[in-house]
Amino acid sequence: MPERSSGGDDLFGPHNLPYGVFSTADEPGRRRLGVRIHDDVLDAGAAAHALGSPYEALLAADSLGPLMAAGRTAWRDVRRALTAWLSVPAHHAELRPFLHPLDAVTLHLPYEVADYVDFYSSEHHANNAGSIFRPGGVALTPNWKHLPVGYHGRAGTVVVSGTDVVRPMGQRKTPTAPQPVFGPSTKLDIEAEVGFVVGAPSRHSEPVPLAAFRDHVFGVCLLNDWSARDIQAWEGQPLGPFLAKSFATSVSAWVTPLEALDAARVAPPARSEPLLPYLDDAGDEEPGGLDLRMTVSINGEEVSRPPYATMYWTAAQQLAHMTINGASLRTGDLYGSGTVSGPARDERGSLLELTWDGEDPLVLPTGKRTYLEDGDEVTLTAWAPGPDGTKVGLGEVTGRVTPSPGL
Amino acid sequence: MPERSSGGDDLFGPHNLPYGVFSTADEPGRRRLGVRIHDDVLDAGAAAHALGSPYEALLAADSLGPLMAAGRTAWRDVRRALTAWLSVPAHHAELRPFLHPLDAVTLHLPYEVADYVDFYSSEHHANNAGSIFRPGGVALTPNWKHLPVGYHGRAGTVVVSGTDVVRPMGQRKTPTAPQPVFGPSTKLDIEAEVGFVVGAPSRHSEPVPLAAFRDHVFGVCLLNDWSARDIQAWEGQPLGPFLAKSFATSVSAWVTPLEALDAARVAPPARSEPLLPYLDDAGDEEPGGLDLRMTVSINGEEVSRPPYATMYWTAAQQLAHMTINGASLRTGDLYGSGTVSGPARDERGSLLELTWDGEDPLVLPTGKRTYLEDGDEVTLTAWAPGPDGTKVGLGEVTGRVTPSPGL
Repeated sequence: MPERSSGGDDLFGPHNLPYGVFSTADEPGRRRLGVRIHDDVLDAGAAAHALGSPYEALLAADSLGPLMAAGRTAWRDVRRALTAWLSVPAHHAELRPFLHPLDAVTLHLPYEVADYVDFYSSEHHANNAGSIFRPGGVALTPNWKHLPVGYHGRAGTVVVSGTDVVRPMGQRKTPTAPQPVFGPSTKLDIEAEVGFVVGAPSRHSEPVPLAAFRDHVFGVCLLNDWSARDIQAWEGQPLGPFLAKSFATSVSAWVTPLEALDAARVAPPARSEPLLPYLDDAGDEEPGGLDLRMTVSINGEEVSRPPYATMYWTAAQQLAHMTINGASLRTGDLYGSGTVSGPARDERGSLLELTWDGEDPLVLPTGKRTYLEDGDEVTLTAWAPGPDGTKVGLGEVTGRVTPSPGL
Repeated sequence: MPERSSGGDDLFGPHNLPYGVFSTADEPGRRRLGVRIHDDVLDAGAAAHALGSPYEALLAADSLGPLMAAGRTAWRDVRRALTAWLSVPAHHAELRPFLHPLDAVTLHLPYEVADYVDFYSSEHHANNAGSIFRPGGVALTPNWKHLPVGYHGRAGTVVVSGTDVVRPMGQRKTPTAPQPVFGPSTKLDIEAEVGFVVGAPSRHSEPVPLAAFRDHVFGVCLLNDWSARDIQAWEGQPLGPFLAKSFATSVSAWVTPLEALDAARVAPPARSEPLLPYLDDAGDEEPGGLDLRMTVSINGEEVSRPPYATMYWTAAQQLAHMTINGASLRTGDLYGSGTVSGPARDERGSLLELTWDGEDPLVLPTGKRTYLEDGDEVTLTAWAPGPDGTKVGLGEVTGRVTPSPGL
């Protein structure tokens, strides 16, 4: 079910206006660009046509791709136009035919994912995961405070919120077992992350500096990087995660424009190691952190409140690092922040950490949990401070675990 | 320069017929599907139209995508038609208007790369790389003989043969240095690989068994997985290669249909560990290995002859493993075999191995080489036994290193 605006806080008012792609029951094959306002979805292309907007070409599309590719000036201008339409009472009657109740539409993956990269930028998460995966070793690898560690994931299995997640099968082997065994993962986990969506491409062999972050990144979503910890522990050396992550990555259906989060900008944590110039954001005009307050719920029960503001590396640093070798960006590139975990136990963004690899189960109304059971539904939400005391909600990302079908 | 058919061996005769995408000087913006025959390129769409072929819709495209997506029966039928056209002398005059000399056309990346995965499936390479990167440790990680180790790479920086490769910048740090330093990579390397191109997609959550390999894989190319060893050594823990590889991956312009390699099928090496059933190819009807004989040249000087037939894991096993967790395939997915290295020193597929991380330089007419110098041009070629004593060439992949532009 799509989230509703809660109580007194309007998370999806005219200061937010996230973009998505929807279809309606009477025309299920026709995908349309939608803008969320409160608990309605504006058919942006139809509205642009009716209002004679110069942005009709960008808004009358079946994907966010054309708008994303159009660049920062277009993003600003289109957002201004939408804000004007949706804030001015005189327009309300005119727009009414183009508003669809949120719970009457189907939401789709709003753009084609080009490359998907996942970072590992929470110091608390990296410390926890390192302690669990490499007991007796150093939790943080020597590179961790010098560069945002990341890796490429599978773009073709990024799915929209609401898509069921089938428990993956695979190999696992504990260190003392003589041989690996095969079967459905017994350690299916989540990772609560924030996703950044690239709009404007960059040229091959031209790194994107910190200051150009907002020229390329179109918006923000929530992201659940489903992870099979048993598969991961066995396959991960020496080249990193592969099948433990590639079966599904869920993203929210709504992409919140970066501009909607301007009031949420905060300074990142103090860095304990000097940074190379291409990553050094000490002199940046605007702080690179974001005060996004996330929640993780399992079967409706809140189990964690990860604070994105505690992330060691910012999204601008991740982008600068990802391109410093000359790698180009394409419209639709998506990168995840890495699991967001705060210092407190109830701020951890994975079950790996929340249950310390199952040693200390969570007790939920639906039973004890070490890792996810079939039928469990996981939901991530987040909000950030908006202008003038408002709140800006990110679209939720939810997914239910279904049983492995076997071979 | 495109490779020419050499001496008495016709590597690109009617038993080969690889596919590519070309444009001509008089219409540089019009990309067309081409089929290579000897040192000519057949404009396949125009020929199909002139001959009234039922396959015109697949062949009159600006990419191999539609043909790749059409599936195995279509691949077979189109290949039969092309073989008939190009083998029957009566057709030659009719086809002449649609043949362009190879050196008069520009070749392009022939399909949009969806996801790119790179494996690590040569035992000799893994032993060499493990010994160099993890001295004192175990060269082969415990999982290596139980599953084909792999990871996702960057699809957006896959480039066609002939594209210059700009030396990447990045961080590096030797274990004893107090801090990382930044600059152009000082250890720019190659990896000689074979690439497999997925045509027909698969469904999410439905693993592709060994026996379905030929229903999904359209063809084969050569692949150079350019690698910055200094960046790799510093960034690679705990999540694997990232910027060390993502700046460029070169593929040949020609995709050789799997069917053209039927005569090259050979048994893979004996496996020294029992395989889980989804990877066990012992009872397969056709052997999973391929007798592809590769060469690596630097500035025209042959430095290695990697034998693909020595690979421990086959392409069918790699595909079965890649999807065993339910990950779906898309048209345009590309996966690399991993560096191909044979047991002999002059069969190694990377400079890391050929020079033992620079300890034992190669002596070339253009000077000593530990790693690549600016201006060096690297070319990979390969041929395989074809039917009736013929030879089947893969398209070469070549690239020249250009200097890092600095920041």
